[in-house]
Amino acid sequence: MALVNHRFTLASRPVGMPTRTDWAYEEETVRELHEGEVLIRVLFISLDPAMRGWMNQSRSYVPPVAIGEVMRALALGQVAASRNPRFAVGKHVSGTFGVQEYFISEGKGLIEVDPRVAQLPTFLNVLGMTGMTAYFGLLETGQPQPGDTVVVSGAAGAVGSVVGQIAKIKGCRAVGIAGGANKCLYLVSELGFDAAIDYKSEDVSEALRKNCPQGINVYFDNVGGDILEAALANLARGARIVICGAISQYCNTGPVQGPRNYLSLLVHRATMKGMLVFDYANRYSQAAQEMAGWMAAGKLKSREHVVEGLATFPDTFLKLFKGENVGKLILKVAAE
Amino acid sequence: MALVNHRFTLASRPVGMPTRTDWAYEEETVRELHEGEVLIRVLFISLDPAMRGWMNQSRSYVPPVAIGEVMRALALGQVAASRNPRFAVGKHVSGTFGVQEYFISEGKGLIEVDPRVAQLPTFLNVLGMTGMTAYFGLLETGQPQPGDTVVVSGAAGAVGSVVGQIAKIKGCRAVGIAGGANKCLYLVSELGFDAAIDYKSEDVSEALRKNCPQGINVYFDNVGGDILEAALANLARGARIVICGAISQYCNTGPVQGPRNYLSLLVHRATMKGMLVFDYANRYSQAAQEMAGWMAAGKLKSREHVVEGLATFPDTFLKLFKGENVGKLILKVAAE
Repeated sequence: MALVNHRFTLASRPVGMPTRTDWAYEEETVRELHEGEVLIRVLFISLDPAMRGWMNQSRSYVPPVAIGEVMRALALGQVAASRNPRFAVGKHVSGTFGVQEYFISEGKGLIEVDPRVAQLPTFLNVLGMTGMTAYFGLLETGQPQPGDTVVVSGAAGAVGSVVGQIAKIKGCRAVGIAGGANKCLYLVSELGFDAAIDYKSEDVSEALRKNCPQGINVYFDNVGGDILEAALANLARGARIVICGAISQYCNTGPVQGPRNYLSLLVHRATMKGMLVFDYANRYSQAAQEMAGWMAAGKLKSREHVVEGLATFPDTFLKLFKGENVGKLILKVAAE
Repeated sequence: MALVNHRFTLASRPVGMPTRTDWAYEEETVRELHEGEVLIRVLFISLDPAMRGWMNQSRSYVPPVAIGEVMRALALGQVAASRNPRFAVGKHVSGTFGVQEYFISEGKGLIEVDPRVAQLPTFLNVLGMTGMTAYFGLLETGQPQPGDTVVVSGAAGAVGSVVGQIAKIKGCRAVGIAGGANKCLYLVSELGFDAAIDYKSEDVSEALRKNCPQGINVYFDNVGGDILEAALANLARGARIVICGAISQYCNTGPVQGPRNYLSLLVHRATMKGMLVFDYANRYSQAAQEMAGWMAAGKLKSREHVVEGLATFPDTFLKLFKGENVGKLILKVAAE
C-alpha cells in the first residue's frame, strides 16, 4: 500500500506578514527507498522566526527556500523504513525534514535522539537548536560574568526563556522583556527571572533604567526595533549585545529599523555581535548534556506550546509574529 | 602689563550645523597665578568632529560644554609663567586648553611634549589623540591580521589617514573611502593605500564589492550613515567593525540614521564595537614611541591642515563637516 505524504511548499514570496496562500498544501505518493536511504515519519515540527527569513529571495546565511520547494523546517521523527544500516526502524531522529509528513534522508545530518532522556518535543526545544542557540549565544557571544545584569527580549519565547534561565544558573540577574502581563508573570514566578518588563504596557527604556540601575551588562536580542534601541539606551560600560534575531522586523514591508542610537556602543565601549548556532555544531552534544543535567536538577524548565495538525501550519506559524506562543512553538504532525 | 585672553565661549546649543552665533568671541584679562598654577600660551588648537557632540545638551562620555563656558578643545601651548615646579617657563605642553589664547592649569592633565621629536602640530596629530585613536581603535578594537582587508571611512581625515597607514604597516590591504578625486589620489599615491573609493562619484557598496572581493575583515568607521550600511553589506565572515565616530550624523536635525542592515552582523558573525581613546591612557606614551619610530622610518606620514587665527575658529571648525580638510585640521593661534 503506497504511503501518502502531505506537505506545504512555498507558493510565493510574501511581502510583510505571510498569508495562507504563500504556501501550497499538496499531497504526493511516497516513493520507494534507494539503497542507503531512510524514510522518516515526521512527528513534531519546530516553528521558528528564522523560517520567515528563508522565505525571502535574498541569500542570507543559507539559501532561500525555492518556489515550489517544501517549506524548510527543523523537525523530529521516527524511522519508518530503512535501507541504511546506521538507522534502524523505530529510532527517533531530528533534522531538517521540512513542513511535511514524510522525509526521505540519505542519513546525512540526521541526529539520533534518545526518548529516555527527555520527552520528544524537548529535542526541538532546550535539547535542540533552540537550546543550543540560547546556550552558545549567551555563554559564548554574551560572556556573562556572575553578578552581571542580563536582559533578554522575546523572553517568553523559545530562545529567550532559556537564555534567562541559563543567566540565573550562571549567577546573573535576569530581566526579561515580553508582551503582556501573563507572560511577565510566567517569567518571574515560574522561570525565576528577577524582573520582567511588559513592552505592551510599559515604557521599556524607563523600565530598564529602573530595573537595571547599574546598566545592562549583556543584552540578548531576539526582537530588534524599538526594544533594541531601549536596551542601547541603558548599557553599562563594556556591555555585550548578542544579535540573535529581530522578529519585530521580519514582516516589515518597509526597510528594517536600524538602531538609531547605535553610537551608544561608543559611549559605553560596548560590543554588538551576531551569532549563528551552526558555528558551534561540534559542541552541541556536550552542551545538550549539560542542559539535560540542569533539567534533571530542576534548574531549567523546557516549555513547549504544541499545536496539533499539519494542516494548521500557516496559522500556527503566524502565532510567532503575533506573540501568541509561550515557550517553544511546535506543530504536532502525528502520534508518537 | 596685564595679558589679554581672547576666547570662544558656547553661546547657544546648535540644532544641526553650528553657525557663527553659537559661540561668543570674548576678551578678558588674564588673572594672576595662584601657587601651583601654570599659565599656558596656546599655540595650536586641535579641531575634531567630537567637539560637535560636546555642544549638545545630552551627556555622552563627557559632560556637555556649558553655555557661557569656553569651547572645549585639545590644544598645544608653551608655559608662559609658572608657580608650579614641575612645569618650567618655555616648556611645551598639551592638554584640554579650549578655544582661547591662554589657559591656567593646576598641572593636572598636562602632557609635556619634546619639540626635538617632531614638529609641534604633530603632537596634536599622529603623536596626539588623533594618532592614539587610530592606533588603539585599529589594533585593539579592530584586531587586524596580516592579509586582512581593512576599510576605513573618512580616510583622508585625521584619524582615517593614520588608520590606513597603520593597516599597511601591519601587512593588511588598506582601502579608503573619501570624498573627491583629489583625496582619493592622495590616499593611494602619497599614503600607500591599496585602493580608494570616492563616495561623491561612486556607488560605495558596489565599489567595496569590487575592491574587497573576499569581503571586509575590519571596517573602521568615522562617518556612519549610508557608508556604514555599504560596509555592512560587504563583510567577510567574522568581520570587526570599529565604531569611532559618525561625522555624517553629528549635524543632523532629525534622528541619527541607524544601520538598517545591522542584521548583517548575524549573517556574517561580525562584531561592531565602540571605542574611546581615553581607555588606553596608560599606554599612550608607548604607542607614541612606536608611531614616532614609524614616522622616522618613513612608514607613517603626519599631515596637518593648519589655518591661522583664533578668530577664524567657527568657519575653520565647520570645514570638518564640509569635508574641506585633508589630514588633521589645526588652528594656529600664536607663533611658536
